[in-house]
Amino acid sequence: MTLEIVSSNKSFGGWHKRYRHRASALNCDMVFAVYLPPQAEQGEKLPVLYWLSGLTCTDENFMQKAGAQRLAAELGLIIVAPDTSPRGDGVPDDPEGAWDFGLGAGFYLNATQEPWARHYRMYDYVVHELPALIEAHFPVSDRRGIAGHSMGGHGALVCALKNPGRYRSVSAFAPIANPLECPWGEKAFSRYLGDDRARWREWDACALIADARERLPLLVDQGDRDDFLETQLKPRALEAAAQAAGHPLTLRLQPGYDHSYHFIASFIDDHLRHHAEALRG
Amino acid sequence: MTLEIVSSNKSFGGWHKRYRHRASALNCDMVFAVYLPPQAEQGEKLPVLYWLSGLTCTDENFMQKAGAQRLAAELGLIIVAPDTSPRGDGVPDDPEGAWDFGLGAGFYLNATQEPWARHYRMYDYVVHELPALIEAHFPVSDRRGIAGHSMGGHGALVCALKNPGRYRSVSAFAPIANPLECPWGEKAFSRYLGDDRARWREWDACALIADARERLPLLVDQGDRDDFLETQLKPRALEAAAQAAGHPLTLRLQPGYDHSYHFIASFIDDHLRHHAEALRG
Repeated sequence: MTLEIVSSNKSFGGWHKRYRHRASALNCDMVFAVYLPPQAEQGEKLPVLYWLSGLTCTDENFMQKAGAQRLAAELGLIIVAPDTSPRGDGVPDDPEGAWDFGLGAGFYLNATQEPWARHYRMYDYVVHELPALIEAHFPVSDRRGIAGHSMGGHGALVCALKNPGRYRSVSAFAPIANPLECPWGEKAFSRYLGDDRARWREWDACALIADARERLPLLVDQGDRDDFLETQLKPRALEAAAQAAGHPLTLRLQPGYDHSYHFIASFIDDHLRHHAEALRG
Repeated sequence: MTLEIVSSNKSFGGWHKRYRHRASALNCDMVFAVYLPPQAEQGEKLPVLYWLSGLTCTDENFMQKAGAQRLAAELGLIIVAPDTSPRGDGVPDDPEGAWDFGLGAGFYLNATQEPWARHYRMYDYVVHELPALIEAHFPVSDRRGIAGHSMGGHGALVCALKNPGRYRSVSAFAPIANPLECPWGEKAFSRYLGDDRARWREWDACALIADARERLPLLVDQGDRDDFLETQLKPRALEAAAQAAGHPLTLRLQPGYDHSYHFIASFIDDHLRHHAEALRG
């Protein structure tokens, strides 16, 4: 549970800090970022939003590009951004070095197949190990929200749907909503989880939503000019699953927006307010 | 005057666009970025802010990291971000590949020494050629502001001080305020301009301020934890020069802030409002 500080930047009266630590769930060293709003220095315990990034990202993309700190400082919200996969010399990668599997593409699940199972346990890391570390070292309350983009948007939905009571709010930008039925998901799941597709269902938001024991409202933004919309993201499958299960979902199709951080920055304030409202209560 | 579109992202109801064109001032192809707020589609001519970036940057750093689009969309401000030097195969670079000279380090001046003089004419490019291009292709008025960071913060001051009437507003983050008297400036000026230090004075904000024919108010933000503060940036020299000349300067030392875009993002809204107020008039 030792944290080594990597960097520290003052930001909107608070601090953007990066830390390195040994992650036992992942058997490797990991770097994560935390945004501490000015209120974190006032002795109060603050709610915390976990942000899960998409394919190829690290902890840096969200903190540098989303423009979330301004409103987080106003709302008194701590934001934690982990990396997107285990890292380091001993961690196996896609044999062809593809960007949609292996390093930068952990898919926030617990792999069961070798050589991945020894390191690729991002679910355990983001749901258990990292929050325990955050709660031990920073002034956070047990009010947790979770959000993310693309692979991480789906990760946020899965983490929330699998853990009733653990998160008070959840939202996603352009999630890979139904990985069971898209090329990115089929590639990752078949390698991390093996060929038995029945085992994949516990890592698919559309499948999980049918059995959800908690009706946590889902907020999803999706650009309608996103290049991955039809082939990979499939928000309509999420909508159908939510409708069939009677699960509250606000799905907003944003006209003209693509898959980039320009899209995320344009709507991050809505998401932060959505989380802050649920986390304040 | 042909513009080739490189990319286009919807952003806060407007558009972030990147273009490539042949820059005759620089004898090479250049890429620049423009943020067009939603009002740009309404037939009105809008004021334009030119942003000059610092050492090692391209057009992308500001547009991805400063978080300026949110308020620019609200204020109806077009923002143009050029690259920081000429680029391409024929363009000479620092012989040792250093990051503080040559590519990414054009210093917004017109070089007089070979092999630099053929390409390194960033002053002519950002003051004349690029604005002419922008004014021919986008719905901009002749109300121009200029701002920048570090090397580009100094560039903004120099462009404004040398061109009375051309800009209605100017501001800078952590400018290299007195390049005549700092290692970055001495290295760049001696190579671009030759050894005669008398010729350097026309490219130094502290020297120019003494002869300024227009009293355009300068807004400067500077972090007091900036690693380059004492050795390279020297805001006190700017303050002394402004005081001696009776030139209006608001110099804000921001406690705890460093040289990064976290600093810029924290105060960009103040700068945008400063420009919008002057540009509206």
